[in-house]
Amino acid sequence: MMETNEKIYDAAIVGCGPAGLSAAVNLRVRNMDLILLGADFCSPKLYKAENVDNYLGFYGISGQELRDHFLEHVRKMGIEIKNSKVDSIYSLGDYFTLISRNTEYRAYSVILATGVSNEKFLPGEEKLLGSGVSYCATCDGPLYRGKDVAVLAYTEEAIEEAEYLSELAGNVFFIPQYGFNGKFAADNIKIINERVQIINGEYRVKSLTLEGRELDIDGIFILREVTPPDRLLFGLEIDNKHIKVNEQMETNIPGVFAAGDCTGLPYQLARAVGQGQVAGLNAASFVRKKKKESQQPPD
Amino acid sequence: MMETNEKIYDAAIVGCGPAGLSAAVNLRVRNMDLILLGADFCSPKLYKAENVDNYLGFYGISGQELRDHFLEHVRKMGIEIKNSKVDSIYSLGDYFTLISRNTEYRAYSVILATGVSNEKFLPGEEKLLGSGVSYCATCDGPLYRGKDVAVLAYTEEAIEEAEYLSELAGNVFFIPQYGFNGKFAADNIKIINERVQIINGEYRVKSLTLEGRELDIDGIFILREVTPPDRLLFGLEIDNKHIKVNEQMETNIPGVFAAGDCTGLPYQLARAVGQGQVAGLNAASFVRKKKKESQQPPD
Repeated sequence: MMETNEKIYDAAIVGCGPAGLSAAVNLRVRNMDLILLGADFCSPKLYKAENVDNYLGFYGISGQELRDHFLEHVRKMGIEIKNSKVDSIYSLGDYFTLISRNTEYRAYSVILATGVSNEKFLPGEEKLLGSGVSYCATCDGPLYRGKDVAVLAYTEEAIEEAEYLSELAGNVFFIPQYGFNGKFAADNIKIINERVQIINGEYRVKSLTLEGRELDIDGIFILREVTPPDRLLFGLEIDNKHIKVNEQMETNIPGVFAAGDCTGLPYQLARAVGQGQVAGLNAASFVRKKKKESQQPPD
Repeated sequence: MMETNEKIYDAAIVGCGPAGLSAAVNLRVRNMDLILLGADFCSPKLYKAENVDNYLGFYGISGQELRDHFLEHVRKMGIEIKNSKVDSIYSLGDYFTLISRNTEYRAYSVILATGVSNEKFLPGEEKLLGSGVSYCATCDGPLYRGKDVAVLAYTEEAIEEAEYLSELAGNVFFIPQYGFNGKFAADNIKIINERVQIINGEYRVKSLTLEGRELDIDGIFILREVTPPDRLLFGLEIDNKHIKVNEQMETNIPGVFAAGDCTGLPYQLARAVGQGQVAGLNAASFVRKKKKESQQPPD
């Protein structure tokens, strides 16, 4: 069941890496009411860096320590990080709705700071997207009532998605791609510890090629850490796999901004923080202007 | 007399505010040999900020403290700030020459991080630039041998320029725009404590309108803290008073990059630091590629 939060935030930030945190800090400085939605572990890339020398102000610091400074900064400003992976975003004219598993958030502006994912597409994935391949169980699950589906799980969050699907689908084949050693209560969820090599099907998904065998299915949910941004928000303009932005960090959709690695190379910390600042400040201006306009009597 | 340093640096950075410092740190991380040229007091704007809350990693810090962290960072990396105001830059095909009063520096790439100046043009200044109005005594002084010139001095550095001009010119009218209370040994330097209202002349500078009187002159040297970037480097493309850059911080001149407030709004710290990083890393790539090409035998 979908929980809807009636409140409309000034800004929703998707991603809590350096770009998302910097956007949050700058929105707060401008007195904006924001929600910061991030995955389990903000900026694993930074966390793993042994030593960072090129973020001005800190010399010879470990990625872990620097990340702690960043998180402390947002905490001191009273900004909470909501542990939520956003699956899709819809524009509803006046505001945006962000769907994160079974919760809906609303905001007048959106800042995408989703980073980049190193994972490659599976053979067949791009071709069959929307024809049996989905990234969002909450969105597309109801289409598979009584049918057999696979859940290709790159993160723990997929567990809950599989459980949700088991209430609708026939069989749910749970295929973990990370160290999973749990079990499920629902007996129509079958765990498969094999690698998916190909997604087969001409016009719709028919089967998966696993390690030396085929598995017939009607649909597959691929649940990665990061959903590709153009899957997240329909109509978002992409330029060579990155979100297209201008120098004010505006995307092609009014009210939607982007910052950090998801906007292009070089994938670098200070660049992400700087872009997060510009996105945050411009989102604040956008919202302030929008609210002012809506207060004016019509001509 | 011009001192020439025969050495060619990998990169010369003009300006030691946050953008320039970030560029320096990133060039050093890439093992580049750089020279950092800055005015007396790096980033007076930051220094004067009472409290900075929106540079990720530091919360509730004074501008002065933050600037100290920045300067400590570059010092720890062995980067020295050369106290030099750059008056003009020339492209010499293979490298650039930067002229700073009586010293010449050479570099394969240039990063402009000159900030923005709030000073307005004087009436007549733009029209007569190059026709009696100059920003560089070292460059244009020899044209005024035996003639009468004014030095409109916004900074202390103008003192030495006036002294240099007194060796060539007839009379040198020194017009300080800051708290000056010194005197000159050369008796052809006359101090005028009045404001300049208009620079007069149809095709060439003829006189200045001071407070209620006219002063006949053949030329005027206007010495501000910051030289407008398009005066600094001939042919540099400007867009609405800012240096035009693409998202890689490249200007229209190959090998010349720009970062920080001089590239546009918003005038913000994290943005400047992020852009400095991108400019620094791209200047490093530019130089590495150039050196590689010059090592290859011709076709």
